[in-house]
This record gives sequence, C-alpha cells and structure tokens, in this order.
Amino acid sequence: MFNSNELLSKRAQKNAGSFLRQIFPRTREPGVINFAGGLPNPDFFPIEPIIAATERAMRADGRNTLQYGMTEGLPELREWIAVRYEKQGLHIKPEQILITNGSQQGIDLIGRVFLDPGNKMAIEAPGYMSAIQSFAMYEPEFIGVGINEQGIDVEQLKYVLKNNSIKLIETCPSFQNPSGIAYSTSTREAMAKVCSQYNFVVVEDDPYAELRFMGAETKSLRNYLGDQVITLGSFSKIVAPGLRLGWTVASPDVTRRLVLAKQLVDIHTNYFAQRVLYQYLLDNAIDDHINQMRGVYRAQRNAMVDAMAQYFPPETQFTKPEGGMFVWVTLPDEADTMALFNMSMDTEKVAFVPGLPFFADGKSGKNMMRLSYSTANPETIEEGMKRLGRVISRYLDAPSKN
Amino acid sequence: MFNSNELLSKRAQKNAGSFLRQIFPRTREPGVINFAGGLPNPDFFPIEPIIAATERAMRADGRNTLQYGMTEGLPELREWIAVRYEKQGLHIKPEQILITNGSQQGIDLIGRVFLDPGNKMAIEAPGYMSAIQSFAMYEPEFIGVGINEQGIDVEQLKYVLKNNSIKLIETCPSFQNPSGIAYSTSTREAMAKVCSQYNFVVVEDDPYAELRFMGAETKSLRNYLGDQVITLGSFSKIVAPGLRLGWTVASPDVTRRLVLAKQLVDIHTNYFAQRVLYQYLLDNAIDDHINQMRGVYRAQRNAMVDAMAQYFPPETQFTKPEGGMFVWVTLPDEADTMALFNMSMDTEKVAFVPGLPFFADGKSGKNMMRLSYSTANPETIEEGMKRLGRVISRYLDAPSKN
Repeated sequence: MFNSNELLSKRAQKNAGSFLRQIFPRTREPGVINFAGGLPNPDFFPIEPIIAATERAMRADGRNTLQYGMTEGLPELREWIAVRYEKQGLHIKPEQILITNGSQQGIDLIGRVFLDPGNKMAIEAPGYMSAIQSFAMYEPEFIGVGINEQGIDVEQLKYVLKNNSIKLIETCPSFQNPSGIAYSTSTREAMAKVCSQYNFVVVEDDPYAELRFMGAETKSLRNYLGDQVITLGSFSKIVAPGLRLGWTVASPDVTRRLVLAKQLVDIHTNYFAQRVLYQYLLDNAIDDHINQMRGVYRAQRNAMVDAMAQYFPPETQFTKPEGGMFVWVTLPDEADTMALFNMSMDTEKVAFVPGLPFFADGKSGKNMMRLSYSTANPETIEEGMKRLGRVISRYLDAPSKN
Repeated sequence: MFNSNELLSKRAQKNAGSFLRQIFPRTREPGVINFAGGLPNPDFFPIEPIIAATERAMRADGRNTLQYGMTEGLPELREWIAVRYEKQGLHIKPEQILITNGSQQGIDLIGRVFLDPGNKMAIEAPGYMSAIQSFAMYEPEFIGVGINEQGIDVEQLKYVLKNNSIKLIETCPSFQNPSGIAYSTSTREAMAKVCSQYNFVVVEDDPYAELRFMGAETKSLRNYLGDQVITLGSFSKIVAPGLRLGWTVASPDVTRRLVLAKQLVDIHTNYFAQRVLYQYLLDNAIDDHINQMRGVYRAQRNAMVDAMAQYFPPETQFTKPEGGMFVWVTLPDEADTMALFNMSMDTEKVAFVPGLPFFADGKSGKNMMRLSYSTANPETIEEGMKRLGRVISRYLDAPSKN
C-alpha cells in the first residue's frame, strides 16, 4: 500500500541530486588523478591542536559544551569573528553574526527567508553549483550575470537590475567557485554604485577570501554596501570542513530573521564543535596557519597554470587565480566537456567537473570545466595536466569519434 | 534604500519565533525554579569519555575526521545505529539511516520532502511544539488528533484518515513531548491497523524511547507498519545534545530523498562530532549509562508526581509518565495558564510552559501546561510543586483578580 513516490513534494520531485554526486563514483576509481573535488588540503588539518583544544574546552566547561545552546551560536565565537573583521575596517557587532553548519546552510537560510516561488534572483554565470541547486528549491527565476577577468560584468548587472525586480543576487567575489576569479577593487566599487540604487539583497559568499596568495588585497562588499550585503564566511577552508562551521554577517534585522529560520531547521549548530574551534582559535596562531596554506596553494596553483600553458592545446583558455582553489578552463564553443570527461576517465584517468552545472540556465558552460589544485602536489598536478592536455588535443582533433 | 522587511518571503513573515523564545528571558531571572526547559540532565554528560574518544578518533584518522564527508553520515555510526535496532527485533540496513543535526533537522527534511502548501497533515493534540512550527513553514493544513492515557485516540485518527487525504502524521509515541504519555502496545496495534489502509507517511518522533523507567516495554511503530514509518532518533537525550546528532530511519527510497534534500541544506552533519561519538559508543557501555539516567529520572518523576498529588488543588489533573522528561497538567476549562505563568513568576518564581503552543489550532490548550523534571533534584522539585500548588490554588480561587 505504501508508495512514497506518490507523496513527494514538488520540490523533492525536482531535486535530482547534485551533479558531483553523479560523477563522484567515477572519480574514486583506482589510479585516478582527481581535480574534480573542492576539498581543502588535509595536510593542514590541525589534528593535535584540535585534540588539545577539546581537552581544554571540555575541562573548562564540559556541561555547557555538551548542552543545548543558543540558535545564534556560541557568543565567544561570534565575538571572535566580529573582531576579525576589524582588520578589514569593518565594524561588526556579534549580534550581526549567526553560526551555521558551514556556509552552505547560510545559503539555504537566505533562500528560506527571502525567496517565494517565482521571485527573480541574479546569480553569477558561471556560479557556485551548490548555491544554484540550493536556491532552486525555493523556485526562483534565475537570471545569470556574466563574469570576466575583473569579476562580475557590471554593465550586464546594471541592465539586469534595471529591467527586473530582483530579490537577491548570489556572488562569490573572492576566488570564485568555479572560476577562481576575484572581483577587482574597481569592479567592487562599480558594482556597489549600481546595487545601492535598488532594494535587494547582495549575498557575498566568501569562504575563500583569506586564501589570497598573490595580487592586491581587496575588501569585502560590506565595505561598499553595508547592510545590503549578507556575507557568508566559513572555517572549512581555513581550519577544517569536518567541523562544519560557517557564519552569516548581516544587519541585526536580517540576522534575527535568519536565526528564527534556523531555529526551526535544526535548533542550533553543534556546540561541541563551536567550543572546540573557539578554544583552538584562542590557543593557536591562525594567521600563521593561513599563511602556510597560502604558500602551498600558490605552489600548487603555479604548477597547474604553468602545466596548462605547456601541455594544453592553444585553443584552450584558462583563468589564472590569485587565490582560492580553482581554475576554470574554456574550450572552443563546440566542445562538450561531459564527453571529454568520459574520454579522460577512460583513457587517462584524470577527473574534473564539466561546466554545465555551474550555470543556472541548464545549457551554458558545455565547453567549460572546473579543476581544483587544492589537494594534489605539484608533481601530480603536472602529470595530470600532461594527461589532460593529451586527451583535450585528441578530443579537439576528432570530437565526434569519441 | 535597503529595507529588508520589504523583501521577506511569506514564510519568513509568518515565522514569529518560538513561544519558548518569548518566555525564555523570564525563566532565567535569578531565583527561578525552572520546569519550562526540556534539557537533559547535564550530570550525565560524559565529559572525560568524550575527551578520550576525541583523542582516539583523531589519532586514528584525523584527516578524515576533519574532512568533508558523505551526506548520509559516517558509515560506522549508521551501522552502529542499525545494529542497535536489532534489540527491538527490527532489521534495519545502514543505507536506511541518515545522520541529521539532531532530530529537529529530520522533521524539517520530512517537511521539505513531503509537504506542498495546502497539503493536509495530522498531528497529535497536544503535540511537539517545534514540530508544529517547523512543519508550518511548509504551509500544510494541520488536523489535530487527540491523546489519551493510552496514546493517540485511534477512533479519532480513523475518522480523520477516512475523511481527509493526509500526507503525513507527526507522532511521538514514547513519552510524548509535551504530555509524557506513551502509546500502549494495544494502541500501537490498533493505530497500525488503521494507518496501513492509507498511503501516507507516519512520522515516529522517538528521542525519548530509551528513557523508560517503569511499566511495560513497547516496540517502535516500525515493528507494526514497516517502511510506512519514518523514525527519528537522537543522541541528545541519551548522550548529549551539544553534539547535535540525530538520525532518520526510513525505506531506502525515502532515505534517498531525505539525503538529496539534506545535501542542499548543509552538505552533511558535522563529521568531527560523528567520529567522536562513534568512538565514545565503541569504548563505553552506553546501556549502563542509560540505566543510570533512568534511575535518576525515575526519582525526579516520582518527586514531581507525588508532590503534585500532595500540593495541587483537587481540580487539577496531571499525567503519570513511565519515562521521558515531561508531565502535562490540565486545569479546569476556564483557566488561562499564560496568566498563571505571569502570576507564578511574579509571586513564586516557578516557570513552566503554558499549553497553547502545543496545539496546531492556535486556540486549544489554554488551560494546560508542560513541566519538565529532568534537570531539578527531588528536593527542588518538591519545593517547586509546593509553590506552584499555592499559586494554582490562589489563581483558581480568584482568576479574574490576577
């Protein structure tokens, strides 16, 4: 009698699962060089410091560490985050911060609080795949805004805002996932000038901001747009993703709405992890830790970009990121990177993510792909690019045969 | 220019925050004896064992403990949970289990996967306040089904199912929050007979199931209804809520839908806490731990029920739970426990939760209230009941003057 398929909500029927989930089994085949992931390098996980922090936090206040807590998150951790923004010239109050289960939860909460079915929202094209899928559950109409080497296409954004009533825009201005591009300061200024003329929410999805390893520093969009911005931060890329700790920064009003939404979603974020992380941050030099990561990611990025220049056929284009974890590759228009993915896995065992899922329109990006350099050492990266260069050349020579 | 209130979704506009959130500040006033909470007793939090488990788990596999993980949850922990159900005669496969951020997240995911606006759902009356509020975000039409000392009113349930197309029912069959009532075995059997005739989801919200301290054991609704049931379990009440770890048990198909939903919500539950908890479960005798808790909760329950019999005026009624953390008190029909709450706080400094928020209709339960005995010792409970008895007597003598 019981048939769950007849009972599913419309949104559940639409949720086919992430693209990565579909290609993931192949990337785990033995011998594969995997550039498809977006994982931080586990060499940097502070295993012993986290053990020590757990012991200190639990001995100091185990009863509260293991009890229910406030939906907003651990006050001391919110304070720590607020103070850290001072470095960027931002004065944030702890009550503007909500601790989330990674910044992905921030995206979902924003969708909950601001999107009704049919509302229009803008999103970078290409944009963060999981944001597209997460927002899609709230049934907005997506409008893509292009990205160039300087960041978002401000002229296009201006046009979109002028001709549409937009509820929010999702952006990833620093070392964007998937392209690795950072908005320049002049792009940020120009974007702010346009955005401030309309009443809508600017989401600044900012997990990679601290991972700049070359080029000029930029500032958060909050410096230009204030409370119009909701910034999403994360400890996943600077400490460890297994702790599942991120945060939102927003006006006190918006934060209150996000808190009320979160309370019904899961009451609060893991207090045990919050206290352990807070103790870790007190007892360790996080900036030294981040500096070390920057050095390693720079070497890995250089290995990838240099090897692409050497081994990729001349008709390919690729970004040259100044931070973060990703390089974005564009093949000639007629190429199909999904076909290339299968060919690459079959013949060279190199994995990447085809470009299609990074566009909300479901059709752009077929000739593009995302590669991550975060977890492979420079030698493996060079070997991987050599192989990938070979398979791209073969593919471009005879795409229809493959 | 920026005005977030103009941008809120309909569901955010409806979300006024939990009732507990409104009365919470008063319950924290100095000198208050607080029976309003639903917190487990922190005397049982295994502080040193968790420190030891953290060290072992991190030394054994820190890189995976701190890395991103599978949405489904830690395979070993899912296996442990599945095996534990064997004790109840249930054969559950690990792939039927999804690890959630406490069982509250399970409720939200079920709403996401099964409810479209306007769908009808049944819920116990009184029922779990946070479930009412969480499901309300998916805009169902609630239909209450009464509770008596034997559990859900099966005749009423039969009538509701016959006359409505119900998508799901939310139940808490073991030591229900808020009433403390457990469905008897004959109620479970009769309920199953009725439910199996209709295609809808039975949610068995079961965080207190292991906390029976007297009376005859009962079995999970899954024993009677199989995959028609989604069972929500939790480590919050048997280990510690600060770990924020719960789970769902469902058919493989339904589990897959819940996993796809969760992936877009927060990718996965905290792996650090999952590995630490799993190590704790391996290294410690959890059944001995639970038995100890049962003994203490029994003593606290006895203190509350005995003192209510002694000090409450005869026109009050109260449940006599055989497990869990709550007693439900019913005053004469014309009483208003919100007025009583203010009077009690002002004159006797005793806190409880008024009954109104436990009913989805927004109007029943005005003469009822929930008390928790979980965190106070027997002496404090007796003193609290003495004071509360006094204030109830005064209130019933002259309700309009107060």
